[in-house]
Amino acid sequence: MTSDLLVPETRVLAIASHVVYGYVGNSMATFVMQSLGCEVAAVHTVHFSNHTGYRQFKGTRSTAQEIEDLYHGLKQSYLTDFDVMLSGYAPSAAAVEAVGAIGMDLQKKAEGKPGSFFWVLDPVMGDQGRLYVNDDVVPAYKKIMHHADLILPNQFEAETLSGIKITSLSSLAEAVTAIHKIYSVPHVIITSVQLAKLVSANPSSTEDGPSTLTVIGSTIRSDGSPRLFHIDVPALDCFFSGTGDMFAATMVARLREAVAAAGPALCSTKSWVSPDDVPATALPLAQATAKVLASMHTVLEKTLEARDAEMRSSSPSSSSSSSDEEQKRAYLLLTKASEVRLVRNVQYLRDPIVQFEVQEWRE
Amino acid sequence: MTSDLLVPETRVLAIASHVVYGYVGNSMATFVMQSLGCEVAAVHTVHFSNHTGYRQFKGTRSTAQEIEDLYHGLKQSYLTDFDVMLSGYAPSAAAVEAVGAIGMDLQKKAEGKPGSFFWVLDPVMGDQGRLYVNDDVVPAYKKIMHHADLILPNQFEAETLSGIKITSLSSLAEAVTAIHKIYSVPHVIITSVQLAKLVSANPSSTEDGPSTLTVIGSTIRSDGSPRLFHIDVPALDCFFSGTGDMFAATMVARLREAVAAAGPALCSTKSWVSPDDVPATALPLAQATAKVLASMHTVLEKTLEARDAEMRSSSPSSSSSSSDEEQKRAYLLLTKASEVRLVRNVQYLRDPIVQFEVQEWRE
Repeated sequence: MTSDLLVPETRVLAIASHVVYGYVGNSMATFVMQSLGCEVAAVHTVHFSNHTGYRQFKGTRSTAQEIEDLYHGLKQSYLTDFDVMLSGYAPSAAAVEAVGAIGMDLQKKAEGKPGSFFWVLDPVMGDQGRLYVNDDVVPAYKKIMHHADLILPNQFEAETLSGIKITSLSSLAEAVTAIHKIYSVPHVIITSVQLAKLVSANPSSTEDGPSTLTVIGSTIRSDGSPRLFHIDVPALDCFFSGTGDMFAATMVARLREAVAAAGPALCSTKSWVSPDDVPATALPLAQATAKVLASMHTVLEKTLEARDAEMRSSSPSSSSSSSDEEQKRAYLLLTKASEVRLVRNVQYLRDPIVQFEVQEWRE
Repeated sequence: MTSDLLVPETRVLAIASHVVYGYVGNSMATFVMQSLGCEVAAVHTVHFSNHTGYRQFKGTRSTAQEIEDLYHGLKQSYLTDFDVMLSGYAPSAAAVEAVGAIGMDLQKKAEGKPGSFFWVLDPVMGDQGRLYVNDDVVPAYKKIMHHADLILPNQFEAETLSGIKITSLSSLAEAVTAIHKIYSVPHVIITSVQLAKLVSANPSSTEDGPSTLTVIGSTIRSDGSPRLFHIDVPALDCFFSGTGDMFAATMVARLREAVAAAGPALCSTKSWVSPDDVPATALPLAQATAKVLASMHTVLEKTLEARDAEMRSSSPSSSSSSSDEEQKRAYLLLTKASEVRLVRNVQYLRDPIVQFEVQEWRE
């Protein structure tokens, strides 16, 4: 491990949830970014024993006031020299507003120094067709969205933000274009779209074949048009929690690296938007996405292996007609076994083997 | 970076403070242990913007109830398979009691499997001759102390616990012996004793010469007598915060490694206490301490260099008669510059160059 593997020095303010056990929110993002060489200041929006995928947890939520207070604590001691803010789950509309105010304050501080501050916003609202936040969180996000430099919605969140139902490849591209337009967000990535589940324009895709995840992204051009790229990754047969947070955290480091590699002009350009003549596949955002997905795919493959080994070694149910209590226990053990195996696979974060090709989006 | 540099797989429950910015408490310990390959579940006892060395901070303290709730959250989902508990700062006597109850519960669960659970307790109470916790925290610690496997007091805390004022080399050894005896704690390390400041039995030590930090430790024998070793390290001319937490976290990983290297018999011995014929310098505790101090010395040297560079590049005060506000700002900037440089020096944690010799204690 030598320091030349590290991304440029980066100070990140990370605002998201904390869980005692396992890897979601800041509990995922902090270690990922630190492992890639970033200094991370972590404001926690909730303090839970474990992620909600276990279907039970204990702990507390931070109030908007508590989030504001922590930020004011940093300000009064000159501790807000952040290059990047990564904001994730916030437990209420008021908390989303508080996070928005922090992002805007840091942007104001960076005025006159274009490119010196970059806000990655993960608009955590729901998944798989349903909201898991209060209804009033949606308009709160819509209000702050246009301050963000990069947003990372999943398919459902992209639908919610764009107002476009993603039912085909072309509506997917339309949603990205709409998000650029409605919110003036310069960079967008829609994570984990399962194309096989779409009523696809591509007749060769089937529901039964090996599933593919498509990640689609774009950096806006000066005329407001998108530069769309996509990367297809084989889907793994497992539900992992925290992968959105892992994507976002790895992206912070890799985007910073790709922008630095593009040269000092881009580093001092507002929102790190590449000149119009840079094609979609050559965008720093696209290059970063390829590295992010390479790291994630290997770590999740290792997680799947470890999960299967852990489940084999755990005692099997004594009968097929297990009680509710036994079924609950089995579910909890499976959820635990599916926690992302992070600390002992950190080399795949640091040194990804890029195996997935960035492709220009063509309808 | 290959996995053979990692310590044995270890699941740690870490209970200590969290700061948004900088490295003390869990904000130090979590990353240190994760970098050495440990899975860390972190319960935060306070949520502050920054460490109290800045002389101002914002944030909240966890109640004893909140700490208990998080632990119960883990229990109800079968997430308490910890090999080690590392407990640090707790903000009240009730919180100390809550942490004690968690340690005892985990010990109870490990009954019948000697060596399968190990509790490292850092009795954070004060430093430099003064308490920085409420008076009732001291008896709370004294009550839970005899459940711990290893305690890591500093000089002041060792005095408080032993009732022996450390004024000489021989009283230092007496304090360790007394702690073994009063609390039946099998392993003790007193961190950072400045021998030059003691009314020393050694006439060659002077107040003016280069200062030395002595770390003294012991693993008890079956007759209750200590096996004392010490390691002398050149002191660095800087006040760093979080070094106690760094010591404790690195120790968790290195002790686990040293015990595993000693073989399966020791791993399944209660409290990992070596057979009586193992001399002080060959103790896993002593071997681990040497690695811990090697890592720490290099990271702190790098921190000192970075601090000096940061202070040189910050704007100098315009006049010698600076205002109170300017003096306060200068103090805050110096405190910030003195934050331990952790993330980009992780190789020295993983791969220490052992340069300090373990010596048997002889009066």
